Amino acid sequence: MTRPIAKQDFPVHQVRRYLEPGPIVLITSCHAGQRNVMTLGWQTVMEFSPSLVGCMISAGNHSFELIRQSGECVINLPTLPLLDTMVRIGNCSGAEVDKFEAFGLATTRAECVAAPLLEQCHASFECRLHDDALVDRYNFFIFEVVKAHVAPEPAHPQTLHYTGNGVFVVAGDRVADRRELFRPELLDD
Amino acid sequence: MTRPIAKQDFPVHQVRRYLEPGPIVLITSCHAGQRNVMTLGWQTVMEFSPSLVGCMISAGNHSFELIRQSGECVINLPTLPLLDTMVRIGNCSGAEVDKFEAFGLATTRAECVAAPLLEQCHASFECRLHDDALVDRYNFFIFEVVKAHVAPEPAHPQTLHYTGNGVFVVAGDRVADRRELFRPELLDD
Repeated sequence: MTRPIAKQDFPVHQVRRYLEPGPIVLITSCHAGQRNVMTLGWQTVMEFSPSLVGCMISAGNHSFELIRQSGECVINLPTLPLLDTMVRIGNCSGAEVDKFEAFGLATTRAECVAAPLLEQCHASFECRLHDDALVDRYNFFIFEVVKAHVAPEPAHPQTLHYTGNGVFVVAGDRVADRRELFRPELLDD
Repeated sequence: MTRPIAKQDFPVHQVRRYLEPGPIVLITSCHAGQRNVMTLGWQTVMEFSPSLVGCMISAGNHSFELIRQSGECVINLPTLPLLDTMVRIGNCSGAEVDKFEAFGLATTRAECVAAPLLEQCHASFECRLHDDALVDRYNFFIFEVVKAHVAPEPAHPQTLHYTGNGVFVVAGDRVADRRELFRPELLDD
């Protein structure tokens, strides 16, 4: 069991720092007394302000209707110590298992949404559905991050990135600072 | 100057292996005798078959109209040796600079599109515009990968992932195989 990670408020327009690198995330949801958690690797940042994130959530997931009906979710960022737990979460269904209980996931109440924050994750981003224009055609949800909670350290956690076929690569072991090659106006996060 | 990387045909329905981890990519484009190359970190896999990739391409980029007008592009995957070149590509505009010449980018003709393949990249994915429903509202293009070229080795190259503010993290130094925790039907790539 991994320990809870203390987090602080973080500016919502800067969540790209954690989501743009493309990590696997854990999406929590809650609707009408049911809650669930799922893994997701198909997401992208779409705008700084409002802070928009696009997520492909397959309709086959138990979480799909919880998210669609509630119009809310939390995007949680797991890191290397949570690898096996994350894989197990992605390999069972909330229709059959209470994943929070089965995997010992400690939760905290969110401020703006009903879905819970995962304490063992490095960051948690509370989201409200911003645009469902592509949900019917592609299962593509555009969320707005309305509240962000991030552990102050490390600045670059070891995140998990899925390559398919059961294999993950880790990012964050090596950090490359190239600020000196940037135009100043591109550094204003 | 980095050397050309020999590539082989690769199944288009498996490009998630390279794109799902969320690396910075180099998008090449060509329209009416003009060509360009830009950096992109805001993209996501959207479907295996057809092989769909969603890309946020800001309208402020010189490449935007080349891609919109031609309905085509190539998504190229740079790796660690190309880091500084990639940063320089992202910090100037094709409206002012011929980036291929300025940065010594060797190119090969693509098979299905007019945009060129970048020889110094690990992989190149030829794309045609599949759906422009969200281009006006969000600058979000949904492309279909119609042809894929990938270097056979290494299986997990050192890819570059942007965190904002001029800082990148590298993925691929550490690889974690968790196939034994997966349901068999989730391993059929």
